[in-house]
This record gives sequence, C-alpha cells and structure tokens, in this order.
Amino acid sequence: MSEAKHDRSFLTFSSTVRRPRLSVEQYVQGVLENNRSVLAQAITLVESNSPVHMEIAQEVLGQLLPHTGKSIRIGITGVPGAGKSTFIEAFGMMLCEKGHRVAVLAVDPSSPVTKGSILGDKTRMELLSRNPNAFIRPSAAGGTLGGVNRKTRETMLICEAAGFDVILIETVGVGQSETTVRSMVDFFLLLMLTGAGDELQGIKKGVIEIADALLINKADGENKDRALIAKGEFNRVLHYLQPATPGWETKAYMCSSLTCEGIPEIWAVIENFRERMTRSGFLQSRRQAQSLNWMQSMTADYLHAHFYSHPEVAKALPDVEGRVARGELSATSAVQQLIAIYEKSFQ
Amino acid sequence: MSEAKHDRSFLTFSSTVRRPRLSVEQYVQGVLENNRSVLAQAITLVESNSPVHMEIAQEVLGQLLPHTGKSIRIGITGVPGAGKSTFIEAFGMMLCEKGHRVAVLAVDPSSPVTKGSILGDKTRMELLSRNPNAFIRPSAAGGTLGGVNRKTRETMLICEAAGFDVILIETVGVGQSETTVRSMVDFFLLLMLTGAGDELQGIKKGVIEIADALLINKADGENKDRALIAKGEFNRVLHYLQPATPGWETKAYMCSSLTCEGIPEIWAVIENFRERMTRSGFLQSRRQAQSLNWMQSMTADYLHAHFYSHPEVAKALPDVEGRVARGELSATSAVQQLIAIYEKSFQ
Repeated sequence: MSEAKHDRSFLTFSSTVRRPRLSVEQYVQGVLENNRSVLAQAITLVESNSPVHMEIAQEVLGQLLPHTGKSIRIGITGVPGAGKSTFIEAFGMMLCEKGHRVAVLAVDPSSPVTKGSILGDKTRMELLSRNPNAFIRPSAAGGTLGGVNRKTRETMLICEAAGFDVILIETVGVGQSETTVRSMVDFFLLLMLTGAGDELQGIKKGVIEIADALLINKADGENKDRALIAKGEFNRVLHYLQPATPGWETKAYMCSSLTCEGIPEIWAVIENFRERMTRSGFLQSRRQAQSLNWMQSMTADYLHAHFYSHPEVAKALPDVEGRVARGELSATSAVQQLIAIYEKSFQ
Repeated sequence: MSEAKHDRSFLTFSSTVRRPRLSVEQYVQGVLENNRSVLAQAITLVESNSPVHMEIAQEVLGQLLPHTGKSIRIGITGVPGAGKSTFIEAFGMMLCEKGHRVAVLAVDPSSPVTKGSILGDKTRMELLSRNPNAFIRPSAAGGTLGGVNRKTRETMLICEAAGFDVILIETVGVGQSETTVRSMVDFFLLLMLTGAGDELQGIKKGVIEIADALLINKADGENKDRALIAKGEFNRVLHYLQPATPGWETKAYMCSSLTCEGIPEIWAVIENFRERMTRSGFLQSRRQAQSLNWMQSMTADYLHAHFYSHPEVAKALPDVEGRVARGELSATSAVQQLIAIYEKSFQ
C-alpha cells in the first residue's frame, strides 16, 4: 500500500518521456514469437515508471492477455540459509530437461533499483541462466501504482504469453514479500532447513500457514537423518494448522539440491496439486479472486495516495496523529476532522 | 472495511433525530461517577448510528479520554464448545472477589441488531451479571464509520472512564472478530478444548499466532489427563510459531471453569504480562499503534465508501470486474478506467 503513497504520476499522461522504439504490434509479435530481445524490452516497458511507457505497456498487455494463464505459477520462499537459489537452479534445470520452459522472477520490495539482485542471481543460478529454455529476471524497483507487485504480475503475464509454462516467483529480501507472492501464484513452496527443532525461529509469522508444501532442503549426507526427524516435526505442526488451499493437505517433504534427490518428487506433488485443483475448479476461482483482489488493492492504493497527498490533509496529519497517539483526541474525531478538510476541496 | 461500504451518513450532521435527554456534561459526570444508568445511556449514545448522536458522543468521549487507559484489556476467543461464557463467568467472579471491577464486552460482526446476544449472555453469565462490580454489555450492531469495531472501542473507553479496571472483550459469532478484538486489546487469550489432537481443526487460520496464551478449558475429572497431553502438544506447536507479542512467550495452560482450578493461575500470567510489558514500554507503544492503525483503517473505510458509492463508478464496476475476472482486461487498465470515471466528477 505504502509504495504509491505520495506518487500520483500515473494519473497524468505527460509526453515528456520519449516513446519506446518498438510499436505495440512489434512488442506483441515479438513476445508471442519468444524473441528474447523483445521479451526483455517488453518487461522493461512494463517496469517503467513513466506514464507514457505505462500507457503503451497496458496496450501491449491488453493484446497479450488472451495468450496468458497457461502456466503453473509457483511461489518460492525460504528461511534464511535454506538454499533458495541452489534449489531453483536444480529444480529449474530438471524442468528444462523435461521439456518445460521456465521463467524465474523475483519480488523484492526492498530493492531500490532495478539492478538489485540480477548479477547475484545470474551468478548463483549459473547453469539455469545459460539454459535456452530458462529466463531469469530480477525484481523490479518500486515506483507508481502497485510498484513491484504490479510489475511482477505483469511480467509473469508477458512470460506466459511468450510460452513459458512454469513460472517461479521467488521472494527476495525482507518485508511482506511472502504475502505478495502468495497473492499471485497457484502453489506456494516454503524451503526449510534440516536440523534441530529451532530452525523455525527464523521464519516469519504466518508464512507456514500460506504454504502448500514445506520442503526441507539440504537433506543429504549427515543431514539426512536430521531431515527425517524435522519432516516428522513439521508434519506434526502442519496437522494443527489449516491448509493454505482448501481441499489440499500441506505436508513436509525433503530434497537435496546437491544430489537432486527429492527434486522430481516435489514436482510430482505440484503436478498432482495442479491436476486436482484444476479438476475441482479451485485453481480458476483462485486466479479470478487474485485478479479482483489485486484490482481492489490497487484502487485502495490510489485512494490512499489521493487522500494523504492532499496538501491540507498532509499539513494537518502530524498534529492529529500526535493527539490520537497521546490519547488527547479520539480516533473517530480525528478521522472526522481529516475528512472535513479533504471534502472541503471537492465542494 | 465492508461495513461502511455504502453508508456516508456520518458525514452529514442532520438534525432530524431528536437530541438525547442528557447534556454532554451530564453524560461525562454520570460516567465518571459510575452511575450505571448514565453509563448504559452513554454507551447507547456511542452505539447510535444517528449523526446527531454521534456528534454528541464524540464530545462526551473527548472529555472522558483523560480518564481512560487505566485498565488491562483482555481479548477472549475460543474454539466452538470451549466454554467461553462459563470461563468468563468463573474468571470474572474471581476478579470481582479480588476487588477488581470487570466489564465484559462482545464483538459480533454478524449481529444485525443490538438485541443479539444480550439475553443469552446474561443468562449464561448469571452470577456475574448480578455482581455489582461487573458490567456486561452485548455486541452493538454495525452501521456507520467502523461499525461494531468503533462502537466496541469507544464502549471500552467509556467503561475505563467509569472505573472498570479489567475489560474482557469476547469474540462472538463468525467472521473476522478475532483480528478485530486482537487489534484493540493488550492480551489475547485463546480458549481450547481438552482431548484428542484434532481439536485444532475447529480453529480459524492464524488465530493461534495472535494469541498471548492458550488456555485448555474443562481440564477436570477424566478430562484432566487428556488436557495434560493436549497442553504438551500445543506447547510443541507454539514452539514453532512466532509469539504474538515480542518478548513474550505464548504458552498453553489448563483450567476448569467448574472447579476454578487454573483460573487464578491464568490471571497471574496476565498480571505478569502486564507488568513486564509496561516496564519494557511495549504496552504503551502497542496501544499507540492500535489507535493510529484504527484511525487509518477508518479513513480507508471512508475512502472506500466514497469511491464505490460514486454513482458512475458503481455503474461501471460490474462490467469492469467481469472483464478482469475473465482475463479480458488487465487489472491495471481496469483501475485506470475506474479512476478516470471517479476523477472526472472532481474536475
């Protein structure tokens, strides 16, 4: 919500920024043909904070929409040190060998610039980044209307239109990225560590409850026995929590990104999930709900920005908030005062 | 959020509703003197959906504010059948005997009318409702600006001004009442049942993670052994979850509302919590954050209502949402279209 707080530039379609080199048709055609260069440029267009680019991006996206939605969208998060990138490398390589086309995107709300983690990612996922059936794109920077969230969602759609049939969306950095990623994927995978019972201490509140599977990585060598114990413990905990997806039982699994043991098995779990949730109609209704929630959330962002960037409201706010925090003014009176200021300008 | 969706009446101070019989001063004086009749009338005033009453209510509240905040605010929720009212009766009676003054409020977002559960509550909590040191007030009905949420918060403040030093806020009915209650209390207590490992199935997602203590009720007779086992299991699960209050360890406890065993112990836990959290300054900062969040949430409600009740927006919405759900229109374009409609009326 806060990303768009003080930015209303998406409302004004100025023409001060030069138009992109390609036409809408060229973008659309290039993406549909999976032309890597055009694909990258289309994503850059979607990631642009310039209103003129955003307008063209929406035209491109509108034409690509009928070609989207055919992938399985998988969110991946993990406790610190769980080995997310080595897992994605191993998992992605296996999928490419099976004939899939894999796009790896990242959501990093803390990333201030586009350059953030790209070099790091490409270094970490060395094999995958060189595989012709894979496409790795780092997290976009924030900015206007929905920021990182919007850019990742629209990048996902563009990748789908380009024929990628497995989209992996990784959480990077701190913040609320788990919830953000959960709100745009079909299946959410939580990578865990083997070992003692204390490893869950590193995990953020509520993250277990939004996962469709817990995957204990690094279950190799001496770790294997401890992974088995951890798996039992996690399944015990999961038994007490409601599953993230109705009709699906969230369970703990094990794998090794080193030996690739357990990697085909987790893909089988995800395929089973997809098959069952498609049959029950849940997958489609989750995606519809995700689109509508996202639309409502962007609207709320806009309304928030509109209200709090109002000069008179912004001027009055610190004093009003201070009095509420000190218990001198009731919250209701405070809101009434701010609304009165806001409404005056529309009368 | 949705309560205020189509109601903007709180913005217009019409004078069609007759003024209440008491003056602002009479309300304030009566509440401070703990005059039961005036206290009840002041709460009725706060619960009124009439703009003229609401205006007076805010004046009364403004004058009472300096006398609020001196209670411990305890939220109580429970799995179905956990025996919430028998617990509150036993707990409340013990507190009254210790010299405390106890107000029992309820949050029931599903309650359409004020009459909701009052008779039920007073029958269920027969001893407590006749105790001169206790005050039981059922959940208010929804309506304008924040609805049930606002009314319960302001009723709590009025009770504090009247000298009640323990406020118990109970969740009633379905819906998001756990989160609502959590957002207005210092300590959140989750009542559980003894027995097999499956009793957590009845609990809503995320509720364990917002609790400061799990209390296994009905730990008496043959149930006692099973309660001990359940307690161990719950502590195991809690070990894997982040505590609801930083610096506090959420644990499982046992009690019997029948034999009163464990009831003084849970009060000792709460007193310990209060003492520690007051010393660390966390209690005060939690309350400040709660007030500010609540203010922001009411503002968002208002903005939401303002936007979605706009005639042209309301007219366009079903078609736009349908196209987004069917994947024919991008969410971003949809929001831009709706905003354009909305903005037009202010230009």
